[in-house]
Amino acid sequence: MDKDDYGFRVGFQGVAGSFSHQALLEYFSKDTDAECYPQFREVFDALGRCEIKYGILPLENSSTGGISEVYDLLGEYGFYIVGEKTIKVDHNLLGIRGVKLSEISEVYSHLQGFMQSKEYFDRNDHWKLIPYHNTAKSAMYVSGENSKNKACVASRQAAEIYGLEILKENINDSCNNYTRFIIIGREAELGISCEKITIAATLPHKVGALYSVLRHFADNDSNLLKIESRPIMDKPWEYSFYIDFQGNMLGQNTKNIFEGLIEEGLDYKFLGNY
Amino acid sequence: MDKDDYGFRVGFQGVAGSFSHQALLEYFSKDTDAECYPQFREVFDALGRCEIKYGILPLENSSTGGISEVYDLLGEYGFYIVGEKTIKVDHNLLGIRGVKLSEISEVYSHLQGFMQSKEYFDRNDHWKLIPYHNTAKSAMYVSGENSKNKACVASRQAAEIYGLEILKENINDSCNNYTRFIIIGREAELGISCEKITIAATLPHKVGALYSVLRHFADNDSNLLKIESRPIMDKPWEYSFYIDFQGNMLGQNTKNIFEGLIEEGLDYKFLGNY
Repeated sequence: MDKDDYGFRVGFQGVAGSFSHQALLEYFSKDTDAECYPQFREVFDALGRCEIKYGILPLENSSTGGISEVYDLLGEYGFYIVGEKTIKVDHNLLGIRGVKLSEISEVYSHLQGFMQSKEYFDRNDHWKLIPYHNTAKSAMYVSGENSKNKACVASRQAAEIYGLEILKENINDSCNNYTRFIIIGREAELGISCEKITIAATLPHKVGALYSVLRHFADNDSNLLKIESRPIMDKPWEYSFYIDFQGNMLGQNTKNIFEGLIEEGLDYKFLGNY
Repeated sequence: MDKDDYGFRVGFQGVAGSFSHQALLEYFSKDTDAECYPQFREVFDALGRCEIKYGILPLENSSTGGISEVYDLLGEYGFYIVGEKTIKVDHNLLGIRGVKLSEISEVYSHLQGFMQSKEYFDRNDHWKLIPYHNTAKSAMYVSGENSKNKACVASRQAAEIYGLEILKENINDSCNNYTRFIIIGREAELGISCEKITIAATLPHKVGALYSVLRHFADNDSNLLKIESRPIMDKPWEYSFYIDFQGNMLGQNTKNIFEGLIEEGLDYKFLGNY
């Protein structure tokens, strides 16, 4: 996609200062017209209504894994992945200015913030952990309450936006904590620099089903980058597989892979090359 | 495992009336000495300290997928799966006695309760949804608050235990909503009736890595039941695969599979046959 194509609107879930907002500003530009939505689904709906040109959504965190809801929406709506952006996620404990750690009794955060900072909170288990909509919103809340016993988990950017003090930096368990965001659009965008392909496939419940699908990737020298399995609604213990693999739709190897999958009779959906 | 072996203690996460508690009572017996713990990790720790003989934990829901934290703990602690129990999960909207739907302004539930009842809450989007520790605890809270504007998502059993009224039955999106629980123990328990095996494996980042592992299952006529990929801490974009497949450790086909995996040099952990 052409990142220099200014003047278009991009949607994200959350509020200003969220990691999605940060990913958006880094992938596009500071001047991008960013539109926030309370729910992931609303970003997909806005894209469907042509209210935004692209949406940006977190798909996976390097410590806690896939963001299931986004995977499921991707399968449901059938839009295309046109790009990706990985950002380093550092969590910080924030409070109102001048507060001491000993004064805190409640901490607000999205569940992911608690999960990714589990060791820190295990060491401070006298605090009540209160799950909240997202980290930036918890910063907004703590700032609004202006109370010494309330703290939150959020980014440095959120501290700045909501006028909070960083009480403890980088509380996340892993110093290699990254979130991978995808950019979605109504149309697939193919280019010679694309190197990753995502498909969603459902497999028959029989011996060797996944094995015979994977043969086509191995035979055509394509590295499998990720497999995420998601349940299929109303079909207990049947799964959709979201497969990321190396390839460019214009290349011969990739053409061979898709020919193989079609011959196999695989029920799949192409979700983008980026 | 011998379910008639009375007089032992079994640990679960949550409070009385939770789905874990229900699975425990159904798998073992009503007389089982059930011990509750606030966190999943504490069930593993209690097992390690021999405080309980078994633990029971939710591993997967048919609508929302794998319970990541339990997968990760399973890999971390190295205990064994010795059994499984699937229960039907029906969510209900509960409130204090005599309350009308129109009086409600806040609903409490574990995030899974909201996620599994998404359509119902989308139709009632004027309610504030407040994430809570678990569904049974949200019932306990609403009961204690005794306020007409508070409702919660929980089971029929929780309604009974905490004296709440069922305001709306079966609000879950899918009427086929099941949760699969595993029973964990310190030792593997092998028997001729076991038919499912779980292993955790890490794969090298190269073309055909998963393909050559899956060959051994296909060649030995073993159906792959589930693959769950989980990130490896501090190694961004590398994964552990939790693989469930058909087999009995005493059978020749299964022996062939494990010989194949060993020849392959696969880094794997056996997690149980049940």
